[in-house]
Amino acid sequence: MNAQNGHHNMLRINADRLLADLDRLRCFGAQSTGVVRPAFSDADMQARYWLREQFEQAGLRSLIDGLGNVLGFSRNPGKAILMGSHADSQSTGGWLDGAMGVIYALEVARCLSESAAHRHLAVDIVAFQDEESRFVGCLGSRSLTGSLDHPTVQNAVDKDGVRLVDALNHAGLSGTPREQLDLGRYLGFLEAHIEQGPTLEAHAMRIGVVTDIVGVRGLKVVFKGQQNHAGTTMMALRRDASTSLYEFAYRINQCFAAHAAPRSVWTMGRVKLIPNASSIIPGYAELDLQFRDADEAQLERFASLAHEVRELMTQSSGVDIEIVEARAPIKPSRMSEALYQHLEQSAQEHVPDAWMHLPSGAFHDAGIMAAFMPSAMLFIPSIKGISHDFAEDSHRDDLVLGCQVMASAVASMFGRQ
Amino acid sequence: MNAQNGHHNMLRINADRLLADLDRLRCFGAQSTGVVRPAFSDADMQARYWLREQFEQAGLRSLIDGLGNVLGFSRNPGKAILMGSHADSQSTGGWLDGAMGVIYALEVARCLSESAAHRHLAVDIVAFQDEESRFVGCLGSRSLTGSLDHPTVQNAVDKDGVRLVDALNHAGLSGTPREQLDLGRYLGFLEAHIEQGPTLEAHAMRIGVVTDIVGVRGLKVVFKGQQNHAGTTMMALRRDASTSLYEFAYRINQCFAAHAAPRSVWTMGRVKLIPNASSIIPGYAELDLQFRDADEAQLERFASLAHEVRELMTQSSGVDIEIVEARAPIKPSRMSEALYQHLEQSAQEHVPDAWMHLPSGAFHDAGIMAAFMPSAMLFIPSIKGISHDFAEDSHRDDLVLGCQVMASAVASMFGRQ
Repeated sequence: MNAQNGHHNMLRINADRLLADLDRLRCFGAQSTGVVRPAFSDADMQARYWLREQFEQAGLRSLIDGLGNVLGFSRNPGKAILMGSHADSQSTGGWLDGAMGVIYALEVARCLSESAAHRHLAVDIVAFQDEESRFVGCLGSRSLTGSLDHPTVQNAVDKDGVRLVDALNHAGLSGTPREQLDLGRYLGFLEAHIEQGPTLEAHAMRIGVVTDIVGVRGLKVVFKGQQNHAGTTMMALRRDASTSLYEFAYRINQCFAAHAAPRSVWTMGRVKLIPNASSIIPGYAELDLQFRDADEAQLERFASLAHEVRELMTQSSGVDIEIVEARAPIKPSRMSEALYQHLEQSAQEHVPDAWMHLPSGAFHDAGIMAAFMPSAMLFIPSIKGISHDFAEDSHRDDLVLGCQVMASAVASMFGRQ
Repeated sequence: MNAQNGHHNMLRINADRLLADLDRLRCFGAQSTGVVRPAFSDADMQARYWLREQFEQAGLRSLIDGLGNVLGFSRNPGKAILMGSHADSQSTGGWLDGAMGVIYALEVARCLSESAAHRHLAVDIVAFQDEESRFVGCLGSRSLTGSLDHPTVQNAVDKDGVRLVDALNHAGLSGTPREQLDLGRYLGFLEAHIEQGPTLEAHAMRIGVVTDIVGVRGLKVVFKGQQNHAGTTMMALRRDASTSLYEFAYRINQCFAAHAAPRSVWTMGRVKLIPNASSIIPGYAELDLQFRDADEAQLERFASLAHEVRELMTQSSGVDIEIVEARAPIKPSRMSEALYQHLEQSAQEHVPDAWMHLPSGAFHDAGIMAAFMPSAMLFIPSIKGISHDFAEDSHRDDLVLGCQVMASAVASMFGRQ
């Protein structure tokens, strides 16, 4: 135990209250062991009204803005820290995911307000909307930082064809103003999240301090050939879109593997063939190629390689291949070392040598926030690395530990224990 | 003009009547320039009642059997020739396809009955049901030859989940007996069809005499890996079903091309990834691999090669690969040279040197019939080789010529002009 650890008024979270609130939030949209709480669903909106009530009871000035973000502002003057995560889930999601970071923020704000030594500190908290991309990935944090344009909101449609503007209307938010944060108010942004991968568990670590959030590029590769009868069209006369797709995907896997950085990942998880029938030569095919890395130069290298493979194949096949962007590129974000050193110190204090640095392979609201203020993230272990699945879970003692590490780090960021 | 051609009572078809009947049949299920007349649809059944009426008016003993086959039996004694094709269409089909062969048979039967020199000949005609595989490919010809078992009928379901037994009930056929042909009655079976490919047009030929109907094998290749998050799962830990699928398909294309016979064809036109999302590593994938050749040994070679590729990959990837039969194999069928030499002679008489031999890359009812009696097929050119599409069409003079060649060949098969 180091010298700092014995401080008599060290901030202590209320573990029972934390776990009870996590369990309560889990009830909104509960299904099996997971939650079904996509952005703007009835369950999501009910959760948000409940959160606003909790934020208010914690002594914060609370509101739901015109895009569904739940905000709780401290009434204290001076520089503030913003904490939070997102409360929406995947269409079939786990119970922790973003919800955990929201309840951590609530618990930390509450426990600061209950401590005579800390109640003057300004901590604002937030439950962002639609981080999970039902309509627009990180919709809430983009809007709060002023980086969401009007046409994006007007044109957004979910995978079932529902328009965002109609979902807003259904949720009763059409007349509600959209907030923007006073960016000058903040020392930084702090987000806790489950790891969603197996790294912490594999290393027997209990806390992860995030150094980077990887960037993501998504390309859609379109193959245009000629649909024909699979029995009567000789091989030499075919312009088979599927044949080109298989070759392209195979070559990408070979070529990316040869040029990958240690933590580069790439995935071709979506295919569409038209008409997708065993007796018909497909005339049209689509392939999604997504790749991620913490280094923008590596992302650029992969993008160039994809175009090189396309060039190579265009010379030999009778199929036209086009590569278009499937999503707006997300640049890698560096977390703020000045900020995350407080997480390191706090973790070292609570679980000496049982924490590690790691990059985040998944994207998070902190990746948006980092462009506007120093940002930092803390991870706790995901059991078996599972997430975006009803089976997602974390150990209760890790849930409690993570929140305590956050609370101590926040006090430390303000120059307090 | 050769010596045989001047015979004073040579059989002459009625071109206007032929084209009028083709146009009339086209009205059942007409949509745009094509037809929507899948087996047992209301349009299909209406067409069948109309056909039965035409068969009856042509002097034949006519009936619709318990699987929807329309049959017209000659009342003449002695050895008979069976002619016909199928009257059902693809879910969006062309107007000619099987319909043409049915109307050819009707016209030939009628024109024999009108000729004093030919009216004693026994020609039976048939409009088979469900050649196009809504429920069971070549359902009608399988049943009429006694090669369809009871469970196949009981268990058959279309792609929308409709059961064959319910479709039979809806069509009012539940109480109707299923016919079987008296196989000993027949000299052979004769089917006319559009080519459905570009070969005749490419060679500027007006008639095709079919030598073989290619065999078809359909395999389903199943890839089982582990679903995971595309951002947080490092490449070394992945068991990506899609990666294995792309490699398998690429290797099949390489390997089959190296071992193909001149008219071998293979197609991988259907893919299924689960969950098929750009940000999720698929844990499960399916690929259909279909191949066709006129030589059973070549089909056997392809099947072995598919298993070799599977073996090769199982040693290196963490994904389990299984190969199962996606459909009952169809063996190649030789057409009867003794029968099709009459088609050759007739074609040579009507369009000297403008006919050719070719195999059929598509399957036909004649491929079923060939196992039970000598069978032969005649093709006429498809414009641009298009079929199974509303755009399917043939030139009017080719439609008339094809029927005349059939009529003369039938007379010749009976030893007549």
